[in-house]
Amino acid sequence: MIETARSDPSLSALVEEFFRNSFTTDNPLITEAIRRMLAAGGKRIRPRIALLCAEANGALPQAHLELAAYLELIHVATLIHDDVVDNAVIRRGVNATAVDYGNRISVLAGDYLFAWIFKNVTARYAHPIPNILSATLAQICDGEVLQLRSLGNLDLQLGAYVEIVMKKTASLFAAAAECGAILGSASACRRKALRDFGLYYGIAFQMKDDLLDVTANAQMLGKPACNDLRERKVTIPLLLALKHADAPFRATVERFYAGDGDATVSALVTGIDTFGGIEGTRSEIARYADRARLSLAPVQESRAKAQLQHLAAALLEE
Amino acid sequence: MIETARSDPSLSALVEEFFRNSFTTDNPLITEAIRRMLAAGGKRIRPRIALLCAEANGALPQAHLELAAYLELIHVATLIHDDVVDNAVIRRGVNATAVDYGNRISVLAGDYLFAWIFKNVTARYAHPIPNILSATLAQICDGEVLQLRSLGNLDLQLGAYVEIVMKKTASLFAAAAECGAILGSASACRRKALRDFGLYYGIAFQMKDDLLDVTANAQMLGKPACNDLRERKVTIPLLLALKHADAPFRATVERFYAGDGDATVSALVTGIDTFGGIEGTRSEIARYADRARLSLAPVQESRAKAQLQHLAAALLEE
Repeated sequence: MIETARSDPSLSALVEEFFRNSFTTDNPLITEAIRRMLAAGGKRIRPRIALLCAEANGALPQAHLELAAYLELIHVATLIHDDVVDNAVIRRGVNATAVDYGNRISVLAGDYLFAWIFKNVTARYAHPIPNILSATLAQICDGEVLQLRSLGNLDLQLGAYVEIVMKKTASLFAAAAECGAILGSASACRRKALRDFGLYYGIAFQMKDDLLDVTANAQMLGKPACNDLRERKVTIPLLLALKHADAPFRATVERFYAGDGDATVSALVTGIDTFGGIEGTRSEIARYADRARLSLAPVQESRAKAQLQHLAAALLEE
Repeated sequence: MIETARSDPSLSALVEEFFRNSFTTDNPLITEAIRRMLAAGGKRIRPRIALLCAEANGALPQAHLELAAYLELIHVATLIHDDVVDNAVIRRGVNATAVDYGNRISVLAGDYLFAWIFKNVTARYAHPIPNILSATLAQICDGEVLQLRSLGNLDLQLGAYVEIVMKKTASLFAAAAECGAILGSASACRRKALRDFGLYYGIAFQMKDDLLDVTANAQMLGKPACNDLRERKVTIPLLLALKHADAPFRATVERFYAGDGDATVSALVTGIDTFGGIEGTRSEIARYADRARLSLAPVQESRAKAQLQHLAAALLEE
């Protein structure tokens, strides 16, 4: 999703190698479910942030690939659980038993992965790292439940949206940055600075993800996306557009979110653009990316700090 | 399921009180899902074993209610995930969206509970307790996947059955006993002895659970059970009966497990009894309960040790 190829291709390769070599279980069904999800891609941005934050404090990133990998695996485990069917529509025409068998395996494979991560983290890392990671997982779950409860809630306030995003997405970036800082023996001040960087970066990262959901079809990026809209998620482009929408557009959105068939996704996207949802989201992304960069003030200049700044700047590109 | 009221009603009450007072989250949907599962009952046998193992080493059980509660909560979290629909039949006639919404909430509430437990355990207990608990959770998941893969496998060997049971059920009893021993500062020898007690007790406990699935309807215990049979689980009474079954009974079981409607559950139960599945299971329970009691040899005599022996003996009652 985000352009990051400019930084650390070799470190990324090392993290990939760690995934391939270190993750194995006696249980082929679990291993298969997890490897499939790892192979499905991802920019490994959480491990990169952890390694850059360690490096920004003078640590050798190569020495901390293992913790970096666990950060990605926590993300992967949450993706495996996201796989659990949450939409009756996609069941139609599919053998229900097979899907349900898949549900159980998804749940168990994700649980196994969480347990495997914590088994290793508690064996190899001192306090507070195991505590930071488990507290972060609790926040992610809390945020996902809040998101589930807000599905289709067109009156969601921006503050409530940001709370969900902080919990479900940004908390893991914050933990990645903080754990990296701890591995680099950062001072309390720099540890806080890097944690803040991760938090603000993570908020902007999720907003960018929301934005691409509605803009990706305006570019030559394969099929139209708009999956968030189809799933009745309340994303920031929609929220901001609704603040300035006229009555007919609001009514169109309400019908669509109520499941009425007469409104199309492309009408929604047009309205979101017309009423400033896309421009407004770009401004919010810029605001949080800026806060991320400003958070880095207590961190001394280095190659790693520059790379963190580049990561934040890349959120403004499309 | 098992008669344990004779021991420690006051400690059980304290554990209940800990549950009620300490477990709360900012997220009402998660809190509700977890409290509902806690209120659904359970004998709190895992916390009791942990407290007795601490007491058997001279510790005050009242001082360790918190860890005892986490052991029960790990069990509860696995039950919440078991709730995820794994049988197309029970969906029929139910609003699929509601069921699916329930699936997601069950997954997230269980994840949240695991994370909350590990957040607290990593903050409050020294190595190796957090490591033992996360390794145990990995074993439980592994065992549940093995069980899922063995659904309907009528050729399952007894050794493979015992491996599944050790992982999915006995590992948590073993962890409860070991953590209790650690909290009581037990010697390595007694820690191993108590862990073995938990392991063998847990195997016998699951076998007893399997047995009650087919014998509970012969008693005045409400409606017939046989849920394991209906779910095509391969339980030990069935496995042992199939070892001595004639061709017609084996064919009946095969038809039933293939989903053919002409065999009834009660015909299965009759056959299981006829071919020694019930008596054979009682012998296996006695064998593992005995191994549990024998494991206690290195532990000096005390009220707590006597209670552990009573727990094992109670598995032989019906």
